[in-house]
Amino acid sequence: MSIDAPAPSLTPSPSIARLLRPRSVAIVGASDKPGALGAAVLANLDRHRFDGAIHLINPRREEIGGRRCLPSIAALPEGVDVAVLAIPRAGVLDAVRELAARGVGAAVIFSAGFAEGGAAGLAEQAEIGRIAREAGMVVEGPNCLGMVNHPDGVPLTFVETVATPPAPGQAGIGVVSQSGAMAAVLGTVFASRGLGLTFSVSTGNEAASGVEDYVDYLVDEPGTRVIAMIVEQFRAPKRFLAAARAARAAGKTIVLLHPGTSSAARESAATHTGAMAGDHAVMRLLVRQAGVVLAETLEELSDVAEIALRCPRLPAGGTAVLGESGAFKALMLDLAEALDLPLAALGDDTAPALRAALPEFVGVSNPLDLTAQGLVDPDLYTRTLAALFADDRVDTILIGLIQTDPVTMAIKLPPILAALGEGADKPVIYAGLDEGAPIGEEAVTALRARGVPCFPSSERALRAIARLVDATAPAARVPAAAPPLALPEAGGVIPEHAAKALLAPCGFTFPASRLATSRDAACAAAEALGYPVVLKAQSAALSHKSDAGGVILHLTDGAAVAAGWDRMIADVARHLPGVTLDGILVEAMGARGTEMIVGARNDPDWGPVILAGFGGVQTEVLKDVQLFAPTMTHAQVVAGLRRLQAAALLDGWRGAPALDVAALADLVLRLADVMVAHPRIREVDLNPVILHPAGAGPSVVALDALMAVEPS
Amino acid sequence: MSIDAPAPSLTPSPSIARLLRPRSVAIVGASDKPGALGAAVLANLDRHRFDGAIHLINPRREEIGGRRCLPSIAALPEGVDVAVLAIPRAGVLDAVRELAARGVGAAVIFSAGFAEGGAAGLAEQAEIGRIAREAGMVVEGPNCLGMVNHPDGVPLTFVETVATPPAPGQAGIGVVSQSGAMAAVLGTVFASRGLGLTFSVSTGNEAASGVEDYVDYLVDEPGTRVIAMIVEQFRAPKRFLAAARAARAAGKTIVLLHPGTSSAARESAATHTGAMAGDHAVMRLLVRQAGVVLAETLEELSDVAEIALRCPRLPAGGTAVLGESGAFKALMLDLAEALDLPLAALGDDTAPALRAALPEFVGVSNPLDLTAQGLVDPDLYTRTLAALFADDRVDTILIGLIQTDPVTMAIKLPPILAALGEGADKPVIYAGLDEGAPIGEEAVTALRARGVPCFPSSERALRAIARLVDATAPAARVPAAAPPLALPEAGGVIPEHAAKALLAPCGFTFPASRLATSRDAACAAAEALGYPVVLKAQSAALSHKSDAGGVILHLTDGAAVAAGWDRMIADVARHLPGVTLDGILVEAMGARGTEMIVGARNDPDWGPVILAGFGGVQTEVLKDVQLFAPTMTHAQVVAGLRRLQAAALLDGWRGAPALDVAALADLVLRLADVMVAHPRIREVDLNPVILHPAGAGPSVVALDALMAVEPS
Repeated sequence: MSIDAPAPSLTPSPSIARLLRPRSVAIVGASDKPGALGAAVLANLDRHRFDGAIHLINPRREEIGGRRCLPSIAALPEGVDVAVLAIPRAGVLDAVRELAARGVGAAVIFSAGFAEGGAAGLAEQAEIGRIAREAGMVVEGPNCLGMVNHPDGVPLTFVETVATPPAPGQAGIGVVSQSGAMAAVLGTVFASRGLGLTFSVSTGNEAASGVEDYVDYLVDEPGTRVIAMIVEQFRAPKRFLAAARAARAAGKTIVLLHPGTSSAARESAATHTGAMAGDHAVMRLLVRQAGVVLAETLEELSDVAEIALRCPRLPAGGTAVLGESGAFKALMLDLAEALDLPLAALGDDTAPALRAALPEFVGVSNPLDLTAQGLVDPDLYTRTLAALFADDRVDTILIGLIQTDPVTMAIKLPPILAALGEGADKPVIYAGLDEGAPIGEEAVTALRARGVPCFPSSERALRAIARLVDATAPAARVPAAAPPLALPEAGGVIPEHAAKALLAPCGFTFPASRLATSRDAACAAAEALGYPVVLKAQSAALSHKSDAGGVILHLTDGAAVAAGWDRMIADVARHLPGVTLDGILVEAMGARGTEMIVGARNDPDWGPVILAGFGGVQTEVLKDVQLFAPTMTHAQVVAGLRRLQAAALLDGWRGAPALDVAALADLVLRLADVMVAHPRIREVDLNPVILHPAGAGPSVVALDALMAVEPS
Repeated sequence: MSIDAPAPSLTPSPSIARLLRPRSVAIVGASDKPGALGAAVLANLDRHRFDGAIHLINPRREEIGGRRCLPSIAALPEGVDVAVLAIPRAGVLDAVRELAARGVGAAVIFSAGFAEGGAAGLAEQAEIGRIAREAGMVVEGPNCLGMVNHPDGVPLTFVETVATPPAPGQAGIGVVSQSGAMAAVLGTVFASRGLGLTFSVSTGNEAASGVEDYVDYLVDEPGTRVIAMIVEQFRAPKRFLAAARAARAAGKTIVLLHPGTSSAARESAATHTGAMAGDHAVMRLLVRQAGVVLAETLEELSDVAEIALRCPRLPAGGTAVLGESGAFKALMLDLAEALDLPLAALGDDTAPALRAALPEFVGVSNPLDLTAQGLVDPDLYTRTLAALFADDRVDTILIGLIQTDPVTMAIKLPPILAALGEGADKPVIYAGLDEGAPIGEEAVTALRARGVPCFPSSERALRAIARLVDATAPAARVPAAAPPLALPEAGGVIPEHAAKALLAPCGFTFPASRLATSRDAACAAAEALGYPVVLKAQSAALSHKSDAGGVILHLTDGAAVAAGWDRMIADVARHLPGVTLDGILVEAMGARGTEMIVGARNDPDWGPVILAGFGGVQTEVLKDVQLFAPTMTHAQVVAGLRRLQAAALLDGWRGAPALDVAALADLVLRLADVMVAHPRIREVDLNPVILHPAGAGPSVVALDALMAVEPS
């Protein structure tokens, strides 16, 4: 059952600004009863000293708190920016209709019970969406907690928020969350870390406007440097990917928490905000490739956001860890290895400046174990940090201190602040080993003033650094042009011989073959191709031809080909009575090699992705495959192939020569180009693909090909 | 290079109590100079109002702070409990000698530069260990920060600690850490969580006494309920395992952080406290099997310790998560799946009490999403928790609340406390979604008073619960007796034919075979066994016989056997000139099946472990193997085999019948029993082992066998 709402329009709405920076607000269902939503919204506006026009609508009241009430939406002046619907669910649809008629720019709908509340609610939500799109009206919700514009002091929500705007002249974090509860949670978390918010938007069921619309706005919003998102489903994935690339280009960081990895979570999503989770692996691949930082937990989301907001730039290369204990050093090594985070290679012989900064009994290493020597020689911190700042191999510095008591902190902190000066030009993160140690507000403030976030634990800091390094400016390739393909108008499955004929001009290598439509033609083809040959039955109806006796290998002479022909015709007819074959493909058998699989899928929401891995049991039992985005570079594809579980086989197992991984990566990119150029192709399967060492002959030969195409 | 110190004695020292609960303390190198170690130790003793005898030793002072100074160790009365050596490294060895002569019970050595400082230091440390063992003296250190007995107020350390003892009548945490810095860090962390410490010991280089000695003591110490450990190397692993089992039996929890997973960390350990990391995988397997909870990070260590100390009992079964948001629910599902943590199965149809407690629009599920309804109907928290307490499927409850503001917390907390009453009999953990929310000391205190720990994040709480559930009372099997084996006195490699002859009476199944010492005998053997047969050259010098032409398969008649004999003799001679063969094994070829590998190793430190997995490329490229402890039950071994990456193959791939996993588990246990009964066996390799479906004939047949044995 799909309870999904229709996708919103794919172009950003100009009205988003009217919602987020309104000059006039109407409250439908205004009230002064304590606890009433309408009362809470009005109180919030007053508390934040909203200085635009406020229109109260309540047919049963003349005035509320000294403000005149209008009897109906129809009584509103034309062109109010936003209306907040603080009314029961039953009146929402009519109200939306009336708001559209009055030219209102946006509606905020708190009520629940729409797409998530059964068929009737779903239909009403669809109608709200239709009206909104027709009128060019933004709809936030239904089933949302509204939004807050923090810098201008515009809260269109009934929730009290503890979040604060950025300090004047400073950039802040924009929060975009489908879940209103989670948006509120993030507000609290960021406030407790002293991080300023610009906008906080909860989109709820997204009847007409989705997270994509708000992200589009925030990418262009100069005060927002980091966008923190909690999303259970993207309704316009391609638009989000474009926004993410734009954010990267603008030097902004998007941090995304996307619940729904687990199968159980996917089931659960269907009962929540009417969102069906997409294919998580494809989503992860493509958003990462678009430069989004993926967080796994709420902690990581705020950790990453804090580093992205406070540091002078994002962590992007080798990290150095400065510590004071050998056990801590071992712990950080374990964690860095588990996180696949590169540590800058620093040693006694290779880092003379650092060597000179340290006492003799402290070896140069990374993590660096200063021991307790800094208590005796506090300048050690200054010298060491200066050497790390000057070392080009060091991109990011994590300072992991034992904070235990105020006395020792008073010794250690000043030399660290001295090294930082007005603020380092590298990302520096300060963390305590001893969570809960009373480090003091003053120290935290002093470090933050120098662009250094303070973390409660080194483990969290290292994890967040790893997420950011991993997401640093993914190299992007512009897919190359692919030759035109004469795809069948009617679409459908394209059998092997035709798929090979279509794909061969695109640069794919297949074994020499001929389609034969008679036994004699098959024998003649075999003679021409040279023995041994393979026979393969060809029909769009036969996608698993081996199971139907439709494949015979190792035929070594004409008699065997003739006998094979007869056997295959009989077997296929028995297996699939009435099937019409296009013919039988006679194909030359090539040299043995390593069996791989390469495939592609054009996800209707996310676009094309390519898959490659080891074939046979490796694929089927171990799912030993990797996914690739069409914009990946050759180097990224090679790196991905080397992440296959059985990657050791690529390097030549047991003395065999190394396989031509570069050629396999070429094949992946070529297939990506074809998928991008021909969006009607739904799926391509090249299975098996035989991979050989570089050398004589083609390194990569696809033995089979199958395509599925959408009708034009 | 091994810079390892000699192993300490394997029996607990009765003097540990003299160190940990001293009635008399000597400070060698007493001082009143600010910053001097001796001065800091004395100040600490005075601050904690140590009421035993204090002897100060300083040849250059008459008195310090009104206390008389002794000129030398020789001037000490006989039988002082502990001497703290606050003197430079150079004087330590002589001092230890003198202390032993005066019958001092224990020495605390702060100085560094022993095993970790090169050959001379290593030799001195070994001499300290020798003297201590001879005199029955405990040595803490060298290179340590000393210890604190918190309940009695005895700090034998120069560090100021913020840790506090447990409240009167309450149990506390004992800290045992090789790293002194980490012991101090844990002191701070536990203090900030309001957790009381009993003893905190840093063992440093462990010249004579190791973490094992202190754990032995704490297992018997009634005030200690949880033992938190940071260890880089166990010097007496088997003693630690015994202590861990004793702790479990006594209802105590050991939580262990053991850095050194990464290869880099292992290198780094060699330069730290003179500890070479052991085989991490074997350590992890065996300590878990002994009931130890393994933590991966400092955070986890303290998280697990807090739950183990505060909750009425350890989490041990299905967890229920109580939340207020759909997105939170999805996040918790993701995390539970990633952690492999079982959630209690609760649904509308299966949990009538819970169904009755909830409003209609809230579905029964786990995690449970109460929505914001609790703000309107606060009793909802009480009703829901009561239903969860009453449900037998729910073992542990995690309450994940949105804490945002004090107003809503004031609504939510009282009904939760009401449900808890005086304290629930199930483990309940309270966590906020919004880290940093000002929940207030009072709420924390009220929850803790009811045995409910308060966590800063639900993610950390779930992770700690998962660690504890995973470690709950591992089932333990008593290894069965194994038949006597006539192992060769001289030890060494035992070739296939002899290994099979030794192992067959233990219940292992091998193909029928005969050792032939002539071509004619081989032909006769083949006739007797029936064709096809295999020939395999036999010699202890030929451990890789295939590579030497020492294996010929598929011989189907006498002529082939005769020709094979000649070829093998020639090939082996060419490959390994001068080798003497025991003969050639003629063996019946059995039915094909799935190739597995089963092996065993008797780790000199940790004892026997068994390994099993898929053979061939699966083993060599993917390392798709699992380790098993000899005390594991049959069910645990089956579960382990099902964790193999390619486990799907065990269930019958592509319509094949399921393989007899139970029989493979039997083989693993049988091998475990042999390893336990015969500690002289260093290694056994059964490779390949052919696994068949249950049915006609043996399910598990070992085609090859190799053993290595220690001399007797």
